[in-house]
Amino acid sequence: MKSFASDNYAGVLPEVMEALNNANHRHARSYGADDITNDTVQLFRQAFGADVDVHFVFNGTGANVLSISSATQSFNSVLCSETSHIYCDESSAPETFTGCRFFPLKSNNEGKLNTETIRQRLIRKGDMHYAQSSILSITQTTEYATVYSLDELKAIGDLTRSNNLYYHIDGSRFFNAAAALGCTLKEMSTDVGVDILSLGGTKAGMMYGEAVVVFNKELSKHLAYKHKQSMQLASKNRFIAAQFGAMLKDELWRTHAAHANAMAQLLQKSIADIPGVQITKPTQANGVFAIHPVQWNEKMWEHYPYYVWDEHTNEVRIMCSWDTSAEEVKDFAVRMAAL
Amino acid sequence: MKSFASDNYAGVLPEVMEALNNANHRHARSYGADDITNDTVQLFRQAFGADVDVHFVFNGTGANVLSISSATQSFNSVLCSETSHIYCDESSAPETFTGCRFFPLKSNNEGKLNTETIRQRLIRKGDMHYAQSSILSITQTTEYATVYSLDELKAIGDLTRSNNLYYHIDGSRFFNAAAALGCTLKEMSTDVGVDILSLGGTKAGMMYGEAVVVFNKELSKHLAYKHKQSMQLASKNRFIAAQFGAMLKDELWRTHAAHANAMAQLLQKSIADIPGVQITKPTQANGVFAIHPVQWNEKMWEHYPYYVWDEHTNEVRIMCSWDTSAEEVKDFAVRMAAL
Amino acid sequence: MKSFASDNYAGVLPEVMEALNNANHRHARSYGADDITNDTVQLFRQAFGADVDVHFVFNGTGANVLSISSATQSFNSVLCSETSHIYCDESSAPETFTGCRFFPLKSNNEGKLNTETIRQRLIRKGDMHYAQSSILSITQTTEYATVYSLDELKAIGDLTRSNNLYYHIDGSRFFNAAAALGCTLKEMSTDVGVDILSLGGTKAGMMYGEAVVVFNKELSKHLAYKHKQSMQLASKNRFIAAQFGAMLKDELWRTHAAHANAMAQLLQKSIADIPGVQITKPTQANGVFAIHPVQWNEKMWEHYPYYVWDEHTNEVRIMCSWDTSAEEVKDFAVRMAAL
Amino acid sequence: MKSFASDNYAGVLPEVMEALNNANHRHARSYGADDITNDTVQLFRQAFGADVDVHFVFNGTGANVLSISSATQSFNSVLCSETSHIYCDESSAPETFTGCRFFPLKSNNEGKLNTETIRQRLIRKGDMHYAQSSILSITQTTEYATVYSLDELKAIGDLTRSNNLYYHIDGSRFFNAAAALGCTLKEMSTDVGVDILSLGGTKAGMMYGEAVVVFNKELSKHLAYKHKQSMQLASKNRFIAAQFGAMLKDELWRTHAAHANAMAQLLQKSIADIPGVQITKPTQANGVFAIHPVQWNEKMWEHYPYYVWDEHTNEVRIMCSWDTSAEEVKDFAVRMAAL
Repeated sequence: MKSFASDNYAGVLPEVMEALNNANHRHARSYGADDITNDTVQLFRQAFGADVDVHFVFNGTGANVLSISSATQSFNSVLCSETSHIYCDESSAPETFTGCRFFPLKSNNEGKLNTETIRQRLIRKGDMHYAQSSILSITQTTEYATVYSLDELKAIGDLTRSNNLYYHIDGSRFFNAAAALGCTLKEMSTDVGVDILSLGGTKAGMMYGEAVVVFNKELSKHLAYKHKQSMQLASKNRFIAAQFGAMLKDELWRTHAAHANAMAQLLQKSIADIPGVQITKPTQANGVFAIHPVQWNEKMWEHYPYYVWDEHTNEVRIMCSWDTSAEEVKDFAVRMAAL
Repeated sequence: MKSFASDNYAGVLPEVMEALNNANHRHARSYGADDITNDTVQLFRQAFGADVDVHFVFNGTGANVLSISSATQSFNSVLCSETSHIYCDESSAPETFTGCRFFPLKSNNEGKLNTETIRQRLIRKGDMHYAQSSILSITQTTEYATVYSLDELKAIGDLTRSNNLYYHIDGSRFFNAAAALGCTLKEMSTDVGVDILSLGGTKAGMMYGEAVVVFNKELSKHLAYKHKQSMQLASKNRFIAAQFGAMLKDELWRTHAAHANAMAQLLQKSIADIPGVQITKPTQANGVFAIHPVQWNEKMWEHYPYYVWDEHTNEVRIMCSWDTSAEEVKDFAVRMAAL
Repeated sequence: MKSFASDNYAGVLPEVMEALNNANHRHARSYGADDITNDTVQLFRQAFGADVDVHFVFNGTGANVLSISSATQSFNSVLCSETSHIYCDESSAPETFTGCRFFPLKSNNEGKLNTETIRQRLIRKGDMHYAQSSILSITQTTEYATVYSLDELKAIGDLTRSNNLYYHIDGSRFFNAAAALGCTLKEMSTDVGVDILSLGGTKAGMMYGEAVVVFNKELSKHLAYKHKQSMQLASKNRFIAAQFGAMLKDELWRTHAAHANAMAQLLQKSIADIPGVQITKPTQANGVFAIHPVQWNEKMWEHYPYYVWDEHTNEVRIMCSWDTSAEEVKDFAVRMAAL
Repeated sequence: MKSFASDNYAGVLPEVMEALNNANHRHARSYGADDITNDTVQLFRQAFGADVDVHFVFNGTGANVLSISSATQSFNSVLCSETSHIYCDESSAPETFTGCRFFPLKSNNEGKLNTETIRQRLIRKGDMHYAQSSILSITQTTEYATVYSLDELKAIGDLTRSNNLYYHIDGSRFFNAAAALGCTLKEMSTDVGVDILSLGGTKAGMMYGEAVVVFNKELSKHLAYKHKQSMQLASKNRFIAAQFGAMLKDELWRTHAAHANAMAQLLQKSIADIPGVQITKPTQANGVFAIHPVQWNEKMWEHYPYYVWDEHTNEVRIMCSWDTSAEEVKDFAVRMAAL
């Protein structure tokens, strides 16, 4: 069975699995004081073209919550998209751990925030009755598998900097975005003014592990303490680092992310003209959003699971991953066309 | 280099590594809805001889905090040993996530709590000014690598049950304890009245992953929600489950834990008679506690790192792991004797 | 100077001041175990026609947060209006104390929630990735000084009950609402299915003090503990109770709340026809919302402060209190008409 | 009935009641932006001989938690006495609001911490596994109604400053301490290096209200936000300020605190020689600690309630307040002598 439900249904990239096997010899100091971790951090600094600090964590919720906590005290608020993972899919973890309020902002049809929407929420500064906004969080790629352009990212960076807001990107699919834009990791982070990034590994083909990448040294100040406090510090940290090492070496991530993106393009093209199918979002990364008759779901799911994103309209999300094959995509389309 | 610093310096058991490689094919449903997870939960139920619920988590702090949260609301307090990991080595994660007060109880020279000490803290029930105690947490093996006997565990279980306290065991080295006692997992948990257990995998030879094992169904009520909320729910959960599957199959854990314990026995015997060495705790599991002249540390550390546990007395902890060899132990002793 | 900024600019009702003076003799047991508290609770039970539990607290934020905490654990979410005080004006106190997520719902032009809006947010029950909604909070009177009808309140109560949601009313101006509807406190709470109520005293003419009134015994279970834990338990509790005693005796609250409401009616009538003034909300309680030219503000504020509610439109809130006089209202209108 | 149970059983000083009545005219700006608040803050600055910031709060728990929160982030720990109110009698409010760990230190027989005990806990700085200590909290007078000397306070201040710890005093009976030492408020705070003080009003004869007094400007940085967030900001703040205004004017507090202290001295002298009575703590402020036969309690309580502090030994606390009379003290002693 190959699923189109989520890229986290996929397994582990062979290169990553090899790196795990290779990392498993000898003793290594725990909690990140080992050589593999040290080497991998150097790879991050090269890839991001900056003297970043890196904190390896277990999962995306951990990465987001730790990132947010670096820039907040409990009287603060966080601005994010109403459709964001941190707002919709991480339970109350963000509030419970940080104590902060999360204000949802309206995203546009592509699931993106624009600067005008953000600007309108920059209110009541200095008013003690209002949880003071200290950080903005956006998602790249978005929950609709769309991609902010470098200009859009830069515009948001300019806005946050001039308003004393920190700038966070939830990049659980950051590699897919960079592959889609054909840019480097540096161009999509350092160069647009990001302060802190949740860099996703799991959906990109790792077994587990994400990285909190810190560009703004102010946010590093207490982060080692918060890392441990957030229950996200691995004792055998080398095994997360080794995976990221494999991903970053010679931009391995790009090959696999580009493939997943290409499969989504192929899928979109393959189903767009099927009568009854309406593509609802531009296909820019590794997911396709479409509306089709609700009665198709059950039949399609016998072979290819996917998610219903909006029950009212039967808008569905069809997700490709690093191991999705062109044959599977074509078979998916053929089966759908036959309904 | 082979370290005696901590069993979390060791790598991954070959059988576990093999299980990880084997688990890495096909797609699998995420967040624990996969077949490997399901099969492994069955193995837990066999091993514990009870209809336990199992929540797989990333690390020991996560396991402890999630376990505690299952049995508390924020106005509660938690009783634990003053020497416990949850009290000394998990930052403020327990308070930040649960909101509760943690009351440290005096442990005896072996790092154990006894029922009399616990009983004396069962105070002020119903007094709204006092954070109401709802759960007791002990550690098996203790932080001093000693082991509660089954009778001791049972006595505590009787006390907690008759006082409406929940009973938690932090079992980051639970396998070492069971190997030391020569008992089953069931005898050391189900049979002594434990309500919830943090079962350690990492120090026992897994790459990452622990399990929250729930014996008392009351504590399961909201645990799925709290699991996600605690940032401890893995999307590719099958890879934690697969490791535990390997550990539980034919009691693989026992072989390796018994070996680590045996190495500690050998070590203790090998250094006990060295002039200047004083063994300070009974060696019951995989660690040796001893006092020796402080100036020996630097020389020994050139070959074999270990921790100083008490700077005032130079009490040191020398830890064996699944991959410690008799040759290394003997070499360690020879070098120490030569100082 | 008489302000129209907020009813919390007013002082203390003479009858309440007298009750405070009367309560100040002899010793009394602390933390609510005194006779005055006991007697006042009986008055509550009469007024609400139910065996309510009452917890006296210091201020409105405390009342709301304590109420919410009675019905939540930290993995829950709270539904409230996007314009509610608990969402806009209580900093992050609700999140910090409860750990919960607060989901803002769109209110209609009168600042009210309707059942359809609520119903649409009753989503993802049982989904561990989503903070599970456990309580709905509405405000009576609303932040726009409008009043839910008994039918509207009842419809919401029916909806919450049939969906296993608890029902909270933030009643910082509950007395004004009851005076406006000409109903009893019982009709506006017990009879519509409210589970827990923040009953405001301060804005109604008390020096300090609000009451958490619990209709649903399930929510009382841990409330004494949470009361202390929320930092809202007064040692000399008799002085809050004495004030409420004066308010409830012979419905003193009604006289004063009705007066404030009448002053708002007079004000609305007196300014509605002034060219340039547009009344924006129905005047149902003790506040008037209107738009007028922004340049009028400075001149009016020389004599009568009031709040600008919406800077974009210069919608202003003009608030009457128990000590607002008809002369002041008329003078206000005369001065505005002269601009 | 006159109670010796707690000074919070007493009512309100006539001078304070008068101040409340006087403050009750006209409108005043809310949340502390009024003239009475402003004037009272000036009185604080005179009394403390420093440019202190003052935040008026409702109760002692609120004052302590707000003070602690000014000096902590959630990964921090707090050092306090094992017998302190903040550790024993404020539920889990400190943890729930701040997220921090509270480490109890052993107090001496007089309930005081000494510098050596504190110094021994200054451990593991920079160790991310350990909640980093950022503030020390002591209580003046202590929970045993003893008083730190100015030298003792200064020694602690020197220790905290040289170790980058903030220094908090829980001064719920600070006035009693200053009266006992015959010193000014300035000498007991500013001059000994205190960073932040919870100054008690309620037990000293106010109706309600305490003050957080900030000596160290670093701690003021976010305090206005935290004040609101902690649910401790009064809308009609003038009524707390007016009470403190009366207390500080011409050191009114000293007269009444000295009286309460004198009554405790008289009580101690009057019962010390009764056979069966053993005074257990030096009587330095307004409370007497003694052991007497447990069977006396019931008979004494018919006339004069007091608290049993230690059930094992029947150590009791007999507390005097501003309105305790010499006649009552003598009658108490006569009745006890007759048992």
